[in-house]
Amino acid sequence: MIIHLPVNMAQQQVEDLARQAEAICLKKADKYVLITSSKVKSLPDALKGYASEHFVLDTDMQLSSRQYDASVGRIDIADTYIGGDQRNTLMIAGPCSIESEEQIEQSCQMLLSLGIKVLRAGCYKPRTSPYTFRGLGLEGLKLLAKMRDKYGLKICTEVRDSTHVAEVIEYADIVQIGAKSMYDHSLLTACGKARKPVILKRGFGTTLQEFANCADFIMSCGNEQVILCERGIRTFETKTRFTLDLCGVAWLKHYTNRPVILDPSHAMGYDYGVPDLARACMAMGVDGLLIETHPTPCVAKSDAAQQLDHDAFRQMYASLKPVAAAVGRQLV
Amino acid sequence: MIIHLPVNMAQQQVEDLARQAEAICLKKADKYVLITSSKVKSLPDALKGYASEHFVLDTDMQLSSRQYDASVGRIDIADTYIGGDQRNTLMIAGPCSIESEEQIEQSCQMLLSLGIKVLRAGCYKPRTSPYTFRGLGLEGLKLLAKMRDKYGLKICTEVRDSTHVAEVIEYADIVQIGAKSMYDHSLLTACGKARKPVILKRGFGTTLQEFANCADFIMSCGNEQVILCERGIRTFETKTRFTLDLCGVAWLKHYTNRPVILDPSHAMGYDYGVPDLARACMAMGVDGLLIETHPTPCVAKSDAAQQLDHDAFRQMYASLKPVAAAVGRQLV
Amino acid sequence: MIIHLPVNMAQQQVEDLARQAEAICLKKADKYVLITSSKVKSLPDALKGYASEHFVLDTDMQLSSRQYDASVGRIDIADTYIGGDQRNTLMIAGPCSIESEEQIEQSCQMLLSLGIKVLRAGCYKPRTSPYTFRGLGLEGLKLLAKMRDKYGLKICTEVRDSTHVAEVIEYADIVQIGAKSMYDHSLLTACGKARKPVILKRGFGTTLQEFANCADFIMSCGNEQVILCERGIRTFETKTRFTLDLCGVAWLKHYTNRPVILDPSHAMGYDYGVPDLARACMAMGVDGLLIETHPTPCVAKSDAAQQLDHDAFRQMYASLKPVAAAVGRQLV
Amino acid sequence: MIIHLPVNMAQQQVEDLARQAEAICLKKADKYVLITSSKVKSLPDALKGYASEHFVLDTDMQLSSRQYDASVGRIDIADTYIGGDQRNTLMIAGPCSIESEEQIEQSCQMLLSLGIKVLRAGCYKPRTSPYTFRGLGLEGLKLLAKMRDKYGLKICTEVRDSTHVAEVIEYADIVQIGAKSMYDHSLLTACGKARKPVILKRGFGTTLQEFANCADFIMSCGNEQVILCERGIRTFETKTRFTLDLCGVAWLKHYTNRPVILDPSHAMGYDYGVPDLARACMAMGVDGLLIETHPTPCVAKSDAAQQLDHDAFRQMYASLKPVAAAVGRQLV
Repeated sequence: MIIHLPVNMAQQQVEDLARQAEAICLKKADKYVLITSSKVKSLPDALKGYASEHFVLDTDMQLSSRQYDASVGRIDIADTYIGGDQRNTLMIAGPCSIESEEQIEQSCQMLLSLGIKVLRAGCYKPRTSPYTFRGLGLEGLKLLAKMRDKYGLKICTEVRDSTHVAEVIEYADIVQIGAKSMYDHSLLTACGKARKPVILKRGFGTTLQEFANCADFIMSCGNEQVILCERGIRTFETKTRFTLDLCGVAWLKHYTNRPVILDPSHAMGYDYGVPDLARACMAMGVDGLLIETHPTPCVAKSDAAQQLDHDAFRQMYASLKPVAAAVGRQLV
Repeated sequence: MIIHLPVNMAQQQVEDLARQAEAICLKKADKYVLITSSKVKSLPDALKGYASEHFVLDTDMQLSSRQYDASVGRIDIADTYIGGDQRNTLMIAGPCSIESEEQIEQSCQMLLSLGIKVLRAGCYKPRTSPYTFRGLGLEGLKLLAKMRDKYGLKICTEVRDSTHVAEVIEYADIVQIGAKSMYDHSLLTACGKARKPVILKRGFGTTLQEFANCADFIMSCGNEQVILCERGIRTFETKTRFTLDLCGVAWLKHYTNRPVILDPSHAMGYDYGVPDLARACMAMGVDGLLIETHPTPCVAKSDAAQQLDHDAFRQMYASLKPVAAAVGRQLV
Repeated sequence: MIIHLPVNMAQQQVEDLARQAEAICLKKADKYVLITSSKVKSLPDALKGYASEHFVLDTDMQLSSRQYDASVGRIDIADTYIGGDQRNTLMIAGPCSIESEEQIEQSCQMLLSLGIKVLRAGCYKPRTSPYTFRGLGLEGLKLLAKMRDKYGLKICTEVRDSTHVAEVIEYADIVQIGAKSMYDHSLLTACGKARKPVILKRGFGTTLQEFANCADFIMSCGNEQVILCERGIRTFETKTRFTLDLCGVAWLKHYTNRPVILDPSHAMGYDYGVPDLARACMAMGVDGLLIETHPTPCVAKSDAAQQLDHDAFRQMYASLKPVAAAVGRQLV
Repeated sequence: MIIHLPVNMAQQQVEDLARQAEAICLKKADKYVLITSSKVKSLPDALKGYASEHFVLDTDMQLSSRQYDASVGRIDIADTYIGGDQRNTLMIAGPCSIESEEQIEQSCQMLLSLGIKVLRAGCYKPRTSPYTFRGLGLEGLKLLAKMRDKYGLKICTEVRDSTHVAEVIEYADIVQIGAKSMYDHSLLTACGKARKPVILKRGFGTTLQEFANCADFIMSCGNEQVILCERGIRTFETKTRFTLDLCGVAWLKHYTNRPVILDPSHAMGYDYGVPDLARACMAMGVDGLLIETHPTPCVAKSDAAQQLDHDAFRQMYASLKPVAAAVGRQLV
């Protein structure tokens, strides 16, 4: 249950009431928001007489639920925003991993030439084998920051585990929680206390319910800027790397109030399918796309097969605009 | 392996050679086509000196493979066609089941008002429970034929098992093999001997390789008019009925020479997601869409939750045209 | 809902009442059994005053539900039985396919030497590729019948589709419905009218609910001798052919009244894992095991990798007896 | 590739050679072990003349592969061991979460009465909802240590993320890496540097290959005491919580040299199925069982449905011994 209390109540009193109701307490500009387990179905006695509003929710997808707040949350990025009252679709592109200054320079210049505002590149790679490239780490973060300063691009990069979450939050403009890390409470908590947009990637074995619950996890720590990213789930089909779950996206759009972005590159795992899928994602009416592109995919140190080369990326990018227009959206 | 022999050879000799090579033999207008298991990797001795061409294939997806024939097969339907040298996307719409003449009349009139050429409606329903509606059977087929005569619509309907395959082939313009029946050899053989377009629906537990193999099954019986239909696979996610596998569609488009159509209604299982998904499918660049729509979904005898009402269908249909244009296709 | 009517009522009256209640009607030795959809939750008016008992069921798993009948159905096979008041576990073994008289002779002699009573061998193979061995068909059935006459073994063989169901029912002692055929209504109906035990194999994409519903399908046609067989479901794991679902078996044992048998050979897909799995299945306390064994697996025309050779089978068989004893069962 | 160098070489020289070969270097009692990516298929030039042995491996499952070391690793626990030259199966039991001193006292006494040596209980719970019980944390660890001192039980408890890994390693006798944390590099690295046995639980969306790779991750950091735990994977079947993958266990036993233990409680999710499954696991011939049992399951703060009460646990435990004997193992 979510309970609203008037903002003019004394903070100490509100916190005492929250404790009595075993509720998490958030202070917003215009109200206090108390959140109990969704198993609480009637207003706790302690809060009677104080609550200005209360919302009974079916599941622990509470703050992120359209039942609670029907409008899609607005998230400001660069000089634009997604969600809210606009139908913007944000392009986030770049290589799987930052590998060198030369490589990332090439990526930045390609993005700039197309007017793309957000660069993605991983510094901490969550590989399952211990014998493969694990990313440049802090050195990579610093190179990305250098690119931001030089080119004015916003930086989106992934946090892998709690040991470096502070660094990533410090350097990134958009913090990405990877599919393999989305159950990490300490990570979710750290991102929940940050004041930056967070892209939460769905685990490949994660149900929609768990996914939305994790969004609530972050939001219940105080950070409302949570973006959901579907990037393919693991199914019996292995001709493609994963299976992009657009039915699930329809569910997320219908039941949650979070902006939704899609990563067709990881889902497909092979470059040949990415352009078609990217157009499908755009027509699906989502708030953003995350596309991997590398100056020379065949020498990439990770995910070589799925990254578009720059020519293929440009061609695909050009083809997205008419699709965006056809569904009443702008590609930003 | 696929081997071509000159058309001017004596049929008896060709059949003898096929027997020696343990090959299936098809007579085309301009050649004989012999097909062995794909495990045969070099031209059988018996055929040396006769073969005009031969193709070594990786898997038993042979006739349906782009490695063998790189152009997408053309299939004539109504006064138009899909595949071949045009970028047409065919709309096939109608109720899950035909329930009564009144119901199907309403469906036909709605389709006609939009210029849609193909009506779908099931007569033999493959339900897993013995205690539910199983369709009107032959009576339904006759009603559909009546609608064809009256309105000039083409009829697409599903065959469930071998006991009524002859009837369905007789009455339908497009024979649909259901997801639960796609492994039925007798059905595949009967459809392979028919001279009508066949929509082969992917089983919800079927791999892409098996799916393509089944297309080969039908084609190796002599019927080249096979259309592949992806309609959702079964995954761990149960908030939606199935998971529409668009990554798989990218694979099918890349590796097979078959037209591909999509059924977002069965994949989603709920009407609210169908319009978004239909637009995504269109942007994916496929050859057709199969959409369930019912005059009054809430009283439908099967699949009530997923059928669009006529208003919702009209709205969705209107929105598909600009998407088609954006990806250089025509909705037919 | 299941409703019992007294056996001394006039059959015509009972049939009229069944029609009014839209119920399936079965005549048993001691009662009439009427079955409506499980959506019917209160006794239909027409039946008030007649019903001797009625059972409200949650789902269309009705006749097969422990809620309706808590005792496991007894099924007589050879000179023994499974289910009922005994804790017997039946061994059913033999090659994937019957390939020749010589091969099946060898199989029979091996079984006889161990005292095994039931021979399994497929005659109609449901392969997904059109270019592979499809079984000996009727010739195979006749060879199996010859073996029965010669050696006194009972014959278990698979029906693939409706076109040959009559033949299989005629020749087999136990009719097996294959995993790929379990949704075939005509097949289920034919088996439901037969008076022979039926092994229903779970489809690899089939939920437990659907599986139990299919058992009801057969039982509602009048044949109570339905045995459920779990043989592996399709999951994201592809190092093994399928994933044997023993959690599902626990569910089946808890919620249905059907004997349950297991096929570890198809689940595993590789001989090396079969003995361990067979022992696990035995300890699980099931009513039977279906194990593939071939005189010379490496030359088998189907499923070569998963068949045990006779030495490996003998060793495994010997190891099953102490496990059976440990869980209070007899291997028969 | 794994390369052995003589132990009498100078450590500095070995480290230099490892750097040249881009290899991880471990010093063992009798040799140096260098490990490169498995993509290296021939002995690096730098190592020629030095290598005493080298092993070409197919995948990055290297140290954990039977191809490299065919004997199952021995792991000492309490006054016994698993793996190595004995066929011991270790029982690890206790509640899902430690909730209070009173509760854990009851658990300990029950275990002691049966002669069980290892207590399991979670202190850091990785729940997907932010609004549920997250465990007692450090306070729980201290209570567990108190139980160890009082009763001589060994303690097995789960680490959730990197922020408390040091604490868990300090307090636990066996460190358990949870299914949701198994991709966490920092966690794997910390456990790899620890000198305690580690139970690595398979993620519910994790392939066997990735699972074995993670074992290599820990081993390549120097800790050889890695135990693999299968606890159910996520499939389309939702009547049970997960699907216990015994086919996968057969693969792990065949291809890896790691002891394997099983957790039927989490796989099943419901107490009714656990005893049958536990017996099946025992007959499968594994090295350990992890069973959840709670003094009063219905009031448990997590996983209430799947925990056995103490009576049910005792009954199940008694039934395991004859099964162990039947497969030539001892329950320890």
